Amino acid sequence: MTGLGRRRGPTETRPLILKAAAELFAEKGFDGASVRAIARTAAVDPALVHHFFGTKEALFVAAMEMPFDPAQLVPRIVEGPRAEIGARMVRAFLAIWGDELARPRILAIIRTATTSEQGAAMLREFMTAAILNKVGEALGIPRLRIALAASQMIGLVMMRYVLELEPLVSATDDELVALLGPVIQDYLAP
Amino acid sequence: MTGLGRRRGPTETRPLILKAAAELFAEKGFDGASVRAIARTAAVDPALVHHFFGTKEALFVAAMEMPFDPAQLVPRIVEGPRAEIGARMVRAFLAIWGDELARPRILAIIRTATTSEQGAAMLREFMTAAILNKVGEALGIPRLRIALAASQMIGLVMMRYVLELEPLVSATDDELVALLGPVIQDYLAP
Repeated sequence: MTGLGRRRGPTETRPLILKAAAELFAEKGFDGASVRAIARTAAVDPALVHHFFGTKEALFVAAMEMPFDPAQLVPRIVEGPRAEIGARMVRAFLAIWGDELARPRILAIIRTATTSEQGAAMLREFMTAAILNKVGEALGIPRLRIALAASQMIGLVMMRYVLELEPLVSATDDELVALLGPVIQDYLAP
Repeated sequence: MTGLGRRRGPTETRPLILKAAAELFAEKGFDGASVRAIARTAAVDPALVHHFFGTKEALFVAAMEMPFDPAQLVPRIVEGPRAEIGARMVRAFLAIWGDELARPRILAIIRTATTSEQGAAMLREFMTAAILNKVGEALGIPRLRIALAASQMIGLVMMRYVLELEPLVSATDDELVALLGPVIQDYLAP
């Protein structure tokens, strides 16, 4: 620990970094907010940001209180038999959304994206860097197919958890995997 | 024209009904707001509401300034060769969303649904009455399949017009129909 961060302990420093990150991501977007600028705003050494959070993507996940971390989710989906990628992706998302604590965070993120252009840009840039590009590299398929798979999953969130439309709410995980799995499969493994 | 509406001309009456409808739909939801109560709030005869708007669904479409009327859209999708229903539905929605004037209304409706539980309930009840039930009756397939087709289309709106995620924004209609058409086809004509 060096420089400006020297006098503070980790219990003070971590929330300062998160606060600065939330501010700068909201103001400048995911691409525009550099780790260096976030460190400067928090008055800590940039090395401390990397020490606490690793990547900029992980800092975003923490600052936005996202209910899942694509750095862990993406490998779980793309690794394994290609013939089961559709069912694997649907089950992974249903597991996240099944978590009662995750629900309000999902809604908050969607609300931010739909109520401000900056919120939309922030989520767009993050999704592109942390999901589309990563899945594209791993699977070697056109980005358009990945974006459409993602659009089906975000549409399901909108209908099932935001609008709470029946019979989607009371459908079982198995019913949803049976119907959505082949769709995601066709998008991702044509 | 009878009763309370007698003294007003249509140019005065119509906006009064729309204002009362917007208020009551927001307050009581689509199911909870009766045409009779809307007429009472607008201080007009209920017959006038029917005269101007026909059905409660059409009144909702007008009061919410929805960019499309399901009463016209649903028949255009369900009538015609069953083997082409997927492509027909995707093209119909792309045509609506291609309209620059419709865009802000779509965003406003999504924003209302994501920022208030009442807004979500209102849209849910309307979608159930005007889309899910109507398409279900016409096609004789499970509501779950129709809801999933709708979830794919609303997910596309979210990604393409709210988040403005590439390459969805610059994809051509033909590219989207080629990829989305078979998905909607499988949902609606299994």
